[in-house]
Amino acid sequence: MAQAQFTRETAATGEFVRQPNRFTDRVTADSDAAPGDGPDEAGRWPVQAGRYRLIWSRACPWAHRARIVLGLLGLDEAIGIGTVDPIRDERGWRFTLDPDGRDPVLGVEYLAQTYRASDPDFVGRVTVPALVDTVTGRVVSNDYPQLTLDFSTQWRALHRAGAPDLYPRELRAELDRLMADIHRDVNNGVYRCGFAVGQQAYEEAYRALFDRLDALSERLTDRRYLMGDVLTEADIRLFTTLVRFDAVYHNHFKCNRNKLSEMPVLWAYARDLYQTPGFGDTVDFDHIKRHYYGTHPAINPTGIVPLGPDPSGWTTPHGRG
Amino acid sequence: MAQAQFTRETAATGEFVRQPNRFTDRVTADSDAAPGDGPDEAGRWPVQAGRYRLIWSRACPWAHRARIVLGLLGLDEAIGIGTVDPIRDERGWRFTLDPDGRDPVLGVEYLAQTYRASDPDFVGRVTVPALVDTVTGRVVSNDYPQLTLDFSTQWRALHRAGAPDLYPRELRAELDRLMADIHRDVNNGVYRCGFAVGQQAYEEAYRALFDRLDALSERLTDRRYLMGDVLTEADIRLFTTLVRFDAVYHNHFKCNRNKLSEMPVLWAYARDLYQTPGFGDTVDFDHIKRHYYGTHPAINPTGIVPLGPDPSGWTTPHGRG
Repeated sequence: MAQAQFTRETAATGEFVRQPNRFTDRVTADSDAAPGDGPDEAGRWPVQAGRYRLIWSRACPWAHRARIVLGLLGLDEAIGIGTVDPIRDERGWRFTLDPDGRDPVLGVEYLAQTYRASDPDFVGRVTVPALVDTVTGRVVSNDYPQLTLDFSTQWRALHRAGAPDLYPRELRAELDRLMADIHRDVNNGVYRCGFAVGQQAYEEAYRALFDRLDALSERLTDRRYLMGDVLTEADIRLFTTLVRFDAVYHNHFKCNRNKLSEMPVLWAYARDLYQTPGFGDTVDFDHIKRHYYGTHPAINPTGIVPLGPDPSGWTTPHGRG
Repeated sequence: MAQAQFTRETAATGEFVRQPNRFTDRVTADSDAAPGDGPDEAGRWPVQAGRYRLIWSRACPWAHRARIVLGLLGLDEAIGIGTVDPIRDERGWRFTLDPDGRDPVLGVEYLAQTYRASDPDFVGRVTVPALVDTVTGRVVSNDYPQLTLDFSTQWRALHRAGAPDLYPRELRAELDRLMADIHRDVNNGVYRCGFAVGQQAYEEAYRALFDRLDALSERLTDRRYLMGDVLTEADIRLFTTLVRFDAVYHNHFKCNRNKLSEMPVLWAYARDLYQTPGFGDTVDFDHIKRHYYGTHPAINPTGIVPLGPDPSGWTTPHGRG
């Protein structure tokens, strides 16, 4: 499976090129929103409590973003949450953690069933997060970067009182540039290191990754969060990669100039977030390690899961704030 | 090749079981020594300057021991040294670093040629170190644990003035026990972690390794060397594993509870040795990394060599002594 993945998502240069997201409809509060395959006459999906279900894996950094944002905004009461097994089999993400091995709301054993119900011709990797409409059983979106921004901007009517504004209008120009840099060099950069099949492609990804981490360390030296005093979407996106760094990316993806715990500013910043409600309580190092080491035979053929590293440092005082 | 190695040197439990050493003759000063295939009427090999050649790889911890001992004892004038390429091809260790790709004294392109000249039926892994007799072209010994002890005890007549006694008679009982523990849990222990093909075999090796490293840290807290104030063979044997720990064992062999650089006592001890003449000047991180990551396709199929870790810490002050 990983070999096939290498074939389909590997450029001639040996570089890893992530597949595009198949489902890009949006749930919107704005009646001017672009049409999709939604239920109203214009094809829009309405904001509605109890209608949608977010399928995530505790292992996956892209899905982890969505889970954290739901919690911070208090949307976890309006949007149901289904969790897949960290180990995919040949049919992909499974609901083996649920009674009878089925998602209790969607009734499916595999997330792939929902993908195929939405697009019988779909042949790519089935990915999380996926926002599924429980009325039609269709996947509304697996477009992870848009999904969390829509939770922040389109679902405001259902936010908890006092929810943070994770995507403030006045900061968006800078935030968008910053998140694009973090995506290219860090979030996807670690995958470009780990899934490279050529030395040069790996080395370019490694250098871009650590140059960016150095720049982010510098930026965070005199501010608590990436945009200053306020927590934003950018912090969540950086966190879900940093929290996996020493557990999997440092070894399994060869991102090994140093561990996160050897970069004092970033390590303190990551611990500060980890210790913030809504962050560390969504982290599962067991799922993370079993998923990465157990389901990439092209880079870990034995499937053996390392016992290290010791994660106890995450709860030590961070000295920031 | 590595797959074949997994097959031949893997027990039914998934545990790595190293092959025995094929050539166990000894060069001896003692006329009561056990006979072998040597040139005198009793089959003994004589101590003689200029007669033997030590073949080593800078990548290999077992060979590295012999190189360090030769240098510390000043035997590198009496025994020639040949260095193989860190990358083995399907015929094994090569002399591609030498002009015309041949060892200038033995005249061979592959160490395997010398093995086969000594035993036409040999079918195991060709290993370094190998002590070769330049008169007959035969391998006297690839028995690395005996080889270095004989350099210390049998070759005394050719030691440099002021050479250390690395195997003092009055310490041998304790030294032998200590070296057996270090061999089982550390020197070979890292291989038992990395070449395990089952989770349980890996976990047992990992626990034995870190328990032993913790015990050695404790032992070294109030003494400079393992046996106290004097450098012995045990320090050399521990050093050649420690110096490879963060470069290869931590990631490639999944010995990742922590890096060596995160164990303060052992890290200072290892730097102390590294900075001692005869140690650090024989270390080649490039050979080490290219060998391990480049020639074990069963655990690193892509053959990509990580750019990290940063080795600059090795030359920082160690504060011991």
